Amino acid sequence: MTKWVYGFGGGSAEGRSDMRELLGGKGANLAEMSNLGLPVPPGFTITTEVCTAFYDNDRAYPDGLDTEVEKSLAAIEALVGRKFGDAKDPLLVSVRSGARASMPGMMDTVLNLGLNDETVEGLAAVSGDRRFAYDSYRRFIQMYGDVVLGVEHYHFEEILEIHKEDKGYVLDTEMDADDWQAVVQGFKKKVDTELGRPFPQDPREQLWGAIGAVFGSWMNARANTYRRLHSIPASWGTAVNVQAMVFGNMGDDCATGVCFSRNPSTGEDRFYGEYLINAQGEDVVAGIRTPAPLTKIEREESGSDLRSMEETMPGVFGELCDIRDKLEAHYRDMQDMEFTVQSGKLYMLQTRAGKRTAKAALRIAVEMCEANVITREDALRRVDPAQLDQLLHPTLDPAAERKVIGMGLPASPGAASGQIVFSAEVAEDWVHSRGHKVILVRIETSPEDIAGMHAAEGILTSRGGMTSHAAVVARGMGTPCVCGAGQVKIDYANKTMMSGGVTLKEGDVITLDGATGEVMLGEVATLKPDLSGDFSQLMEWADGVRRLKVRTNAETPDDAATARGFGAEGIGLCRTEHMFFDPARIISMREMILADTEKGRRAALDKLLPYQRQDFIDLFRIMKGLPVTIRLLDPPLHEFLPHGDAEIAEVANAAGVAEAVVRRRILELSEANPMLGHRGCRLGISYPEIYEMQTRAIFEAAIEVSKDGGDPVIPEIMIPLIIGKKELEILKAVIINVASEVEAEKSAKLEFLVGTMIELPRAALKAGEIAEEAEFFSFGTNDLTQTTYGLSRDDASRFLDTYISKDIFAGDPFVSLDQEGVGELVRIAAERGRKTRSDIKLGICGEHGGDPSSIAFCDQLGLDYVSCSPYRVPIARLAAAQAALKS
Amino acid sequence: MTKWVYGFGGGSAEGRSDMRELLGGKGANLAEMSNLGLPVPPGFTITTEVCTAFYDNDRAYPDGLDTEVEKSLAAIEALVGRKFGDAKDPLLVSVRSGARASMPGMMDTVLNLGLNDETVEGLAAVSGDRRFAYDSYRRFIQMYGDVVLGVEHYHFEEILEIHKEDKGYVLDTEMDADDWQAVVQGFKKKVDTELGRPFPQDPREQLWGAIGAVFGSWMNARANTYRRLHSIPASWGTAVNVQAMVFGNMGDDCATGVCFSRNPSTGEDRFYGEYLINAQGEDVVAGIRTPAPLTKIEREESGSDLRSMEETMPGVFGELCDIRDKLEAHYRDMQDMEFTVQSGKLYMLQTRAGKRTAKAALRIAVEMCEANVITREDALRRVDPAQLDQLLHPTLDPAAERKVIGMGLPASPGAASGQIVFSAEVAEDWVHSRGHKVILVRIETSPEDIAGMHAAEGILTSRGGMTSHAAVVARGMGTPCVCGAGQVKIDYANKTMMSGGVTLKEGDVITLDGATGEVMLGEVATLKPDLSGDFSQLMEWADGVRRLKVRTNAETPDDAATARGFGAEGIGLCRTEHMFFDPARIISMREMILADTEKGRRAALDKLLPYQRQDFIDLFRIMKGLPVTIRLLDPPLHEFLPHGDAEIAEVANAAGVAEAVVRRRILELSEANPMLGHRGCRLGISYPEIYEMQTRAIFEAAIEVSKDGGDPVIPEIMIPLIIGKKELEILKAVIINVASEVEAEKSAKLEFLVGTMIELPRAALKAGEIAEEAEFFSFGTNDLTQTTYGLSRDDASRFLDTYISKDIFAGDPFVSLDQEGVGELVRIAAERGRKTRSDIKLGICGEHGGDPSSIAFCDQLGLDYVSCSPYRVPIARLAAAQAALKS
Repeated sequence: MTKWVYGFGGGSAEGRSDMRELLGGKGANLAEMSNLGLPVPPGFTITTEVCTAFYDNDRAYPDGLDTEVEKSLAAIEALVGRKFGDAKDPLLVSVRSGARASMPGMMDTVLNLGLNDETVEGLAAVSGDRRFAYDSYRRFIQMYGDVVLGVEHYHFEEILEIHKEDKGYVLDTEMDADDWQAVVQGFKKKVDTELGRPFPQDPREQLWGAIGAVFGSWMNARANTYRRLHSIPASWGTAVNVQAMVFGNMGDDCATGVCFSRNPSTGEDRFYGEYLINAQGEDVVAGIRTPAPLTKIEREESGSDLRSMEETMPGVFGELCDIRDKLEAHYRDMQDMEFTVQSGKLYMLQTRAGKRTAKAALRIAVEMCEANVITREDALRRVDPAQLDQLLHPTLDPAAERKVIGMGLPASPGAASGQIVFSAEVAEDWVHSRGHKVILVRIETSPEDIAGMHAAEGILTSRGGMTSHAAVVARGMGTPCVCGAGQVKIDYANKTMMSGGVTLKEGDVITLDGATGEVMLGEVATLKPDLSGDFSQLMEWADGVRRLKVRTNAETPDDAATARGFGAEGIGLCRTEHMFFDPARIISMREMILADTEKGRRAALDKLLPYQRQDFIDLFRIMKGLPVTIRLLDPPLHEFLPHGDAEIAEVANAAGVAEAVVRRRILELSEANPMLGHRGCRLGISYPEIYEMQTRAIFEAAIEVSKDGGDPVIPEIMIPLIIGKKELEILKAVIINVASEVEAEKSAKLEFLVGTMIELPRAALKAGEIAEEAEFFSFGTNDLTQTTYGLSRDDASRFLDTYISKDIFAGDPFVSLDQEGVGELVRIAAERGRKTRSDIKLGICGEHGGDPSSIAFCDQLGLDYVSCSPYRVPIARLAAAQAALKS
Repeated sequence: MTKWVYGFGGGSAEGRSDMRELLGGKGANLAEMSNLGLPVPPGFTITTEVCTAFYDNDRAYPDGLDTEVEKSLAAIEALVGRKFGDAKDPLLVSVRSGARASMPGMMDTVLNLGLNDETVEGLAAVSGDRRFAYDSYRRFIQMYGDVVLGVEHYHFEEILEIHKEDKGYVLDTEMDADDWQAVVQGFKKKVDTELGRPFPQDPREQLWGAIGAVFGSWMNARANTYRRLHSIPASWGTAVNVQAMVFGNMGDDCATGVCFSRNPSTGEDRFYGEYLINAQGEDVVAGIRTPAPLTKIEREESGSDLRSMEETMPGVFGELCDIRDKLEAHYRDMQDMEFTVQSGKLYMLQTRAGKRTAKAALRIAVEMCEANVITREDALRRVDPAQLDQLLHPTLDPAAERKVIGMGLPASPGAASGQIVFSAEVAEDWVHSRGHKVILVRIETSPEDIAGMHAAEGILTSRGGMTSHAAVVARGMGTPCVCGAGQVKIDYANKTMMSGGVTLKEGDVITLDGATGEVMLGEVATLKPDLSGDFSQLMEWADGVRRLKVRTNAETPDDAATARGFGAEGIGLCRTEHMFFDPARIISMREMILADTEKGRRAALDKLLPYQRQDFIDLFRIMKGLPVTIRLLDPPLHEFLPHGDAEIAEVANAAGVAEAVVRRRILELSEANPMLGHRGCRLGISYPEIYEMQTRAIFEAAIEVSKDGGDPVIPEIMIPLIIGKKELEILKAVIINVASEVEAEKSAKLEFLVGTMIELPRAALKAGEIAEEAEFFSFGTNDLTQTTYGLSRDDASRFLDTYISKDIFAGDPFVSLDQEGVGELVRIAAERGRKTRSDIKLGICGEHGGDPSSIAFCDQLGLDYVSCSPYRVPIARLAAAQAALKS
C-alpha cells in the first residue's frame, strides 16, 4: 500500500533529502535535518502523490490518508508532550506547502493552527502571556480566514484599524490582551457574517481545511503564472508539511530569521543573514519590519544601527554558526536557512540550496571546487547558464555623473534605467504594448506582481529587506533591484514618487544600481563587464568539457569583436542585408531595386561591391581565420524601400526617376505575407547578379586578407530559404563561376564551402538530396518555427499569452526550441543530411542557439555548433558543457 | 553496342509501336505501319537516346552514328531506287522530329532535302515539271534557311513578294518555273549575304544540318514552354525521322490530307478528315488554304462547296477507308493519320492516337467498350479526367438571344465570352495582370502564341481548318475555339475586327460557340451541361471501380446542389466564414469584432445564430444524410472589417461607435503575415463564444432537419489550424458542452464527430497525439503547401514562372500536390493518426482534391475520401477510378 505521510522530528525521520519528488523540497530537507540531529520541531509531510491523486480524483483524498495523518499527529504529540486540541496545553501546528521546486510565496501557509476559544486560554496560561495568546489567535483567524475560508484580508485589517482608531493607537504594539481578544471577537463575527457559519472551533476540522487549502493553492492563478515562468509542470504537485509551532514572538528572548551560509549576492564565504527579535517568521519574509543583520561585521559594514544577533544572542548565534557549517558540508552547497528562537532555544524550520546571483553562483562554484568540496563537473552544473546574462551586461560607469536621489538595499546586482511606473499592470502594458523600458516602483511587491516584475528593467521598493519578496524574485530573474529604500515616498494615487527632494511622475526616467542600492535621476552611462576571475575560470572548465562549438551571429565589427571577447569560435550567421541599411549604401540598394533591367541592377550593384568587400575584410580580420558563415541576401526587397512621402521623393530624386515610378515599384513589391514571399534564395534565382556581387565581395575580401599575411580565410557561403536541391544547384553554380573569375583575375586560389539554411519544413524533409550539394546545413530555427507552427513571430504576441496560460504552449516557441515538432524536423534533416554526406557540418543559427535547453537538444542531435548573439556566447559555452556532462 | 538508328519501309521495320520511348511516337508508328504492310515511304529513325547523348556530350553525336545513318540511307535508296544526291534522279528526304509525346508544331521540320542546283534539274527532268522542281527547291531553301541556318522567314517572303510585285502577280499559282528559279537565286544570294557563306549544296551536309537542327529544336523556347505546360520532362529527348519524300503537290492527281478514324470533336464512329489537292502536307496543318472535307456526307452536312475526296479520288479514298479500319482495329483506339497521294498513289506518313474533345473521348471509350473492342478498365483509362472539365461547364442557352456576327468552323466545343484582344502577349497581360476574361482573335495562330492561348477563354481565327494549329491546340486545352471564320476581317495595326457589318475594337465583348462555330456580339446566357448518356455511363463504371469517396467543398445551397448533381457523396469542407459576408450578416459580424467584451461579442453572435442555423438546415436538407464536414471560423477577423473611408463611417454608425474606434480596431487587428496570424482555432481559443455559436447552430439545425423526418444528420465538426493536441482538447470540450446544452434544451440526442484540419507541418508531425482527440483528419493541403514551402500563394505568382522555367518546380505546387515534401507530411500524419486510432477517417479538402495526380497519391495513401469544388467532382470520380485500377 502506498505510504501517504512521512513523519520527522526527535532526531530521526521517515524521509530523506533525496526524496524531494515525493516530499517536496521543504519536507525532504526537514527530514534530512532531523536525521542529522538538528533541532527541528517535529512534524509530518503529506506527499506530492496525495496532491496528484487529489486532482485526479476530483479533489478527493486517497483512502487511508486520514488514518496516517492521525498516527503522525499522535507522534508529534508524543514528542512535544502536548495534545492537539487540549484545552489546557494545546499542541499548535503550522501547515505549509512544499513543492519539488521552490516557489517562494506562491502558495499558502497557515500558522498557529489548533487555536480556538478554549485552547487560546490554555496557551495564555501555559505561556503566561495572554496578549501573546490572543495575538496568535487573531493571526490564525486572519490567515485561516483568508487562505482557507476565502474571507479577504482587508475585512480583518479594517476591523483592526477601527479598533486602533477607537482606542487612539498608532502601532500594534500598543494593543493589549483585551484589545486582541476584542479584535478576535470582531474577526469571528465577520467570518460568520461573510460565510453564514461560524469560524471552525474543531482543531481537526481546521487541520483538514488547511490541508485542502494548500493542495487547492497549487492550482491558483499565482502559482500557475509562477510555474509557467519557471517551466515547472503542474503534474509535479505539492506536498503539505504539518509541523509543531514554535514561536519567535513570545518575548525578547525570542527571534526569527533567515540566513545564508554564504553571501547570496557576492558569493563570499561569510555567514550572512537577517533576524527580527520577537517576531514570527512571516514578518521577515513579508518585509513588513526591516530586519537587523545577523553578524557584527555585517552590521558594521552596512552602518546599520540595529544590533546584530551575534551581539544580542551570542549563544544561540554560535549554535547557528555550527549548524551553518554542518549543513553546508552535508549538502556541499550554499544553504538558505530559516530559524526561530523560542525562549532562547534555537529551532531550524527550513534549509535549502540558496538562490544566488550569477556572480555569487560563479564564486561559490569556483571556490567550492578549488576547496575540493565539489568536482569541476559539479561546479559546471551548479551555475545556471541563463543567469550569466546578469554578468555580461554593462554596469554603471564609475566616472559617469550620478545624481543620487535615494538609497536602499543592494538586493539584486546590475544597472538598469527606465521610465518609472507604479503598478505591475502598467509595467506589463508599457513594455509589451509600447516597447518602453520601465522601472517598477512599489512600496513592496507581492506574488501578484510577478509578470510586471518580469517585464521591468529594474525594481525599486521602499520597504522590505534583502530576503523580501522583491529581492528574492529579482535575484532569481537577474533583474537589478534596490529594496527597502525608506526615504522614497510613493504615492500610488497620484502616480508620483518623492525622494531626495525631487518629485517624479509616471514616465520619468531613473537609474538603479542593484550592486550599491543607489537610485539616480535620469539615465547614467554604463561600462562593459569584467569577465576575468571566477567567470573566466568556469568558462575554461566549460570549454574543456563541451563538445559543441559556439559561434556568434554578427555582422558588424563591433558585434564580432564583442563575441570574440566572449569566446565565440567563429561567425555562424553574418546577415549581409544589415549591411545595406547604412545611409551611404541604401541609395545604391534602392537604385538596384528600382532598375528595370539586369544592366541597371548591375550598375547599382557595382557601387555596393566596394562597401560589401570592406565589410568582409573587417570581419575576416577580426575572426583571424575562424570560420565565417555568410548568408546571402535574405529579406524581401520591399524592406529596403522608403515609406513616407518625403523619403519617396528623396529616393526618386537620387535615382533620377519620377516619384510615380518609386510608388509603383513599392506597390509591385508589396506582399500579403512577406514571410512567405519573394525572399531568400528566391531573390538569387530571380536576380543572380545580386548573389554574384555578394560572392565576389566575399572572395575578393578573402584574398585581400590573406595577402596581408593574415590567417587564411575559408568563407562558408550560405544560401537561405531553399525548398529543395535544385535552387542550391543553380546558385552554387553561380558562386563557383564567380570564384573562377576572381581566381583568374587575382591569380589566387580560393577555398570556400557552400551550404544552406534549413529553415523550411520542406528543406528539412528533402535534406538527403540537398546534402548532395550542400557542404553544411545551418538550422534557421526562427523561420522553421514560424513555418512549422504556421505562426508569424510578429503577429503571435496577440495570442501567445493566452496560449501559454491555457497550457497549449509550454513556453514561447521562439525562445526555447519546440523539440517535439520543430525538433523532429531538425532531427530528420540532420539524419538525412548525414546519410548523404557523412561529414556535413551542422549548426544552428536561430535565436534558439543561445537558449540552454535548445543547446542541450542540439548536443543530443550531435550538431557541430550553435551560433547565438554575442551576449549569449558565454551562456552557450556553459550550456554546451552541461549538455556534454548530461550525455 | 547501342543501336542508334532504326530503319523502316518496304513492308517491314526494325522498330515497333511499343518502342515509342526510343523511337518517338512518329517513328514507332511509322515502323508499326511498315510492319502491317501499309504503304509507308521508306525511312529511318535516329533514336531519342541520340538526343540525350547529344545534350550530355555538349552537342556532339555518339560514335558510330554516322555509319548507321549511311547504312540506313542506302537502304532507302535501295527501296526507292534513287540515290541521295544523284544529279539525274535524286532521292529527296524529309527530316522531322518525333518525341515520345506528341508536341504538335513545337519542333522543326525540313522537307525536300537533297535538292541543290544540280539535283533540282534532275527532279525537273524526272517529274517532267520544272515549275514543281523549282517550287520544291525554293520551299527547301526557305525551310532550311529558317530552321537550320537561322535566316529568318521574312527575308524570303520579302524576296518572293517583290518578285510578284515586279511581275504584277497576285497569287503564287501565277508563278512559272522561271519565276521560281529567279526566286531561288534571290534566296541563295540572301543566305550568302546574311551568313557570309553560300547555301550548302552538299546533300549530306544538308542532312546533318537538319538532324542537328531537329535535336537543337528540342531545347528551344517554344518547346520548353510546351513541355512545361504539358509536364513533359526535358530528359525524354526527341527522335529524328528521315524519310523518302513523296509529293502531294505534283499535280491534280496529287493530294495531301489529315484524317481521323472517328470524329475527334463528337466521337461519332464516322470517318472524318480534310484534304487538299495538289498541296504539301504542311499546307493543311498550317491552315494557309482551307481544306476540303474527306467524305461526301461531311461535305453535304457542312454545306461546303468544295468537292470531297470520296468524290474526286474514289479509288484512293476506298484504300484509305480500308487503312482506317485496319489501323483502328490494330491500335484499338481512334487514330489521327496523315497521308499524301502522289500521282494517284496513297502513302501513309503518320498515325497516332487522335487528340479528341472530352465529349469525343467519352463517346469513343463507351462505344468501343460496348462493342467489346476494349474492356471497361481500358475505357476508364482512355479518358483524361482533367479533360472532363470541358463537359461540365455551361453551354449557350439556346433560348438566349444571339446576335451572330460571324461563323467559322466548330473547332473546339464549349461557349466562351470575353473581351477581344489581338495578340497573345496582350491576352496574357490582361488575364494575369488585370484579371480580365479575353477572347484571343488572330488571323491564324502559331506555336509562339501558346501562352496567350492558354490564358484566353476562347480563340477565334479567320484562317485555317479543323486541324490547324489553333484548332488542335485549343481542343487539347479544352478551350472553345472557332476557326477559319473567313468573313472576320482582322486589323492588327488598328486593333479592330470587322464582321457582320460590325467593327469591334480591343476590349469589346464577344461570345464564341465552339460547338457551332458561331461568333456573337456581347455576352450570351448559358445553360448547365447535360451529363447523361456516355458521361453517366462512364461515371457509373468509375464508381464501380474506385475505392476513394468523393466529396465536395461547398457552403452555398447552390454549390451543394450542383455537387450532388455531379455525384458528390457528401461535403468535405463547408467554410463557414463565407456565410458571414452576406450584407445582412456582415454588420453583426463586425459588431462582434468591434465589441470590447465577451458580453458584447455574445450579443452580436446571438444575432448571427439564426442565419447560421438556417445555412446548415439548408445544407443538411440538400445532402440528405450524407456526411457534412463543417469547418469552424478560420480567417483572421480583420478580413471582415471595412477598408474604405465611407465603409468605415457606415460600420461605425451601424455599431454605434466613433469612427476612430473602428480605425483603431482595424489597426489593432492588422497583421504582418495574416496567413500565419491570429486565425483558425486560435480565434476559437481566444473567443470560444464564436465557436459556441457556430456549434450551436450546427446542432440546432441537425435536430431541426431530423424532426422534419429528413435523414438523420451526423455533422462532422472540424477545427482548423491546430498545432497539437491541446487546442483540440480545449475546443472539443467547448463543443461537447454546447451539445449537452442543446440536447437538454431540445430533449434530443445528438450524434456528431469532432475532427481537425491537418494543415500545418507541426500538426502532421504530432498527428499521433492529435488522433487521441480527433475522430477525423482532413488534410488542408493548400495551407500545408504554403507552410511546408514557406510560400504564400498570394505572393508566389511573382516568381512561380521563373521557378517552373528553371525546373525548380515541376509545376505549380498549389495545383498538383508536391508528393515528396508536402506528401511526406501527409503520409506521416496518416500513419501516425491511424496508429493511434485505427478507424480514423482521413480525407483531403485542399484544392488538390480535384487534381488527378494528387488523387492518385491520396489513393495510394489509403485516404478515405477527397473533397473538391463541385465542378471537379466528376473529374475526381474518374481519377479515383483510374487510381484504383493502377493499384
